[in-house]
Amino acid sequence: MTPISSRANPLFKRLRALAASGQRQRREGVALLEGPHLAEAFLNAGGHPDLCIVAQGGAARPEIARLIERIAARDGGAQRVAGFDDALFDQISPVANGGVGVILMVAAPRAVLPERIDMRCVVLDGVQDAGNAGSILRSAAAAGIRFAFCMPGTANAWSTKVLRAAMGAHFEMTLVEEVDPAALAARLAVPVAITDSHGSASIYAADLRPDLAWVFGNEGAGVSAFWRAHAALRLTIPQPGRIESLNVAAAAAVCLFEQCRQRAAA
Amino acid sequence: MTPISSRANPLFKRLRALAASGQRQRREGVALLEGPHLAEAFLNAGGHPDLCIVAQGGAARPEIARLIERIAARDGGAQRVAGFDDALFDQISPVANGGVGVILMVAAPRAVLPERIDMRCVVLDGVQDAGNAGSILRSAAAAGIRFAFCMPGTANAWSTKVLRAAMGAHFEMTLVEEVDPAALAARLAVPVAITDSHGSASIYAADLRPDLAWVFGNEGAGVSAFWRAHAALRLTIPQPGRIESLNVAAAAAVCLFEQCRQRAAA
Repeated sequence: MTPISSRANPLFKRLRALAASGQRQRREGVALLEGPHLAEAFLNAGGHPDLCIVAQGGAARPEIARLIERIAARDGGAQRVAGFDDALFDQISPVANGGVGVILMVAAPRAVLPERIDMRCVVLDGVQDAGNAGSILRSAAAAGIRFAFCMPGTANAWSTKVLRAAMGAHFEMTLVEEVDPAALAARLAVPVAITDSHGSASIYAADLRPDLAWVFGNEGAGVSAFWRAHAALRLTIPQPGRIESLNVAAAAAVCLFEQCRQRAAA
Repeated sequence: MTPISSRANPLFKRLRALAASGQRQRREGVALLEGPHLAEAFLNAGGHPDLCIVAQGGAARPEIARLIERIAARDGGAQRVAGFDDALFDQISPVANGGVGVILMVAAPRAVLPERIDMRCVVLDGVQDAGNAGSILRSAAAAGIRFAFCMPGTANAWSTKVLRAAMGAHFEMTLVEEVDPAALAARLAVPVAITDSHGSASIYAADLRPDLAWVFGNEGAGVSAFWRAHAALRLTIPQPGRIESLNVAAAAAVCLFEQCRQRAAA
């Protein structure tokens, strides 16, 4: 594979423009998965990349060589691998110095809201920080939750930062963005649970075994008035320390795994 | 209060240089607390700031006005408040457009390793990401843990990003940085617990009621060989989903609050 080394190359120009603009990625319905770990999670989940972008310096790394082999082994797969010299690759990747070595360009599925939601799910209610949004998706996937709904104001779920923080959760879930809260509430056939420092029940005293829709709110403002009004369970995490506050992704992990504990014990 | 508006002002020059360099902050033993929430947590914990830096546009905000009043009400407090016009303030604050409105310059205590550690504690074993390090400290403080030890390679605990993510946990804990692992191990009078996907016991089956030293490892490499060798408890968080992995700060929250649950139930 002769790496592309010309800045005038049309594919390079397209990828550089794409990498620089989250808006453009959204418009074209694609996402960029950076690094071998995330790329492997995508392949393991049965995904087919549109393009595998490899840095010259990365192609020799065993974990990247294995990825290329897996992709190239498929019908037409070899045409989907494009090598770039390191200087050009660095202009596509936001991580400097060819650090990630490989990027997959993949379709970012625009899932539609299911007619009826009768399973466990998470609702990201204006979670702004990409690291928090990704961590919540990752915890939810690890807890076996298959649906995530993002309210307007939530970080763009297919952005590179959220993808990196979620570590492959995207490929294990149906993820719907820009969901109208009223439309979601109308289709939810499971009770809504929120956490609240003034909540009425401790997560340990409440029965969390049933399927629930877990709503996690904005870092500053917390859960929105809409979802407060729709909450069947207002839960609190008892905190023996003098500071009573948890990061939203930490609180989400505690709640989701307390639910797993109760279900496993049942 | 007439705000400082000259770029030639010596205090402005000093603060701008300080804000731009984490190394310089370390050398001078100070930290910068951004925003009214963190500043309030510091005052609530009984802290006395070296300096309260206020943006002209922020001074009128009620939560900032209250802070200034609290600081100025103390002996010599009025001399510790310095106003800057917004353009100058923006060069001191890493958050653009005077968003935070107020910054406290405070002493960053260089705590020494206690002779004997016989209480619950957390050990940050190369946690690199500032958001993760801060979130772990915040969860630990909320769980009532009063000691944190940072191994070399961990994010600088008094950096602005870690402070922001920890939301005041620093002021409720004894936090020792750049700790030699062997020195810490020799002084620990409580068993060491690590999490490990190949761990032998589920966190729900293990007895977590005793005081423990919780070691949380690097985002990529996990817990170091040193602490693996010193672990009395190798715990695993059962994860029913197809992805078996949690962000380190999420895993820490699950472990620390499972310990709280068991202790409260006892």
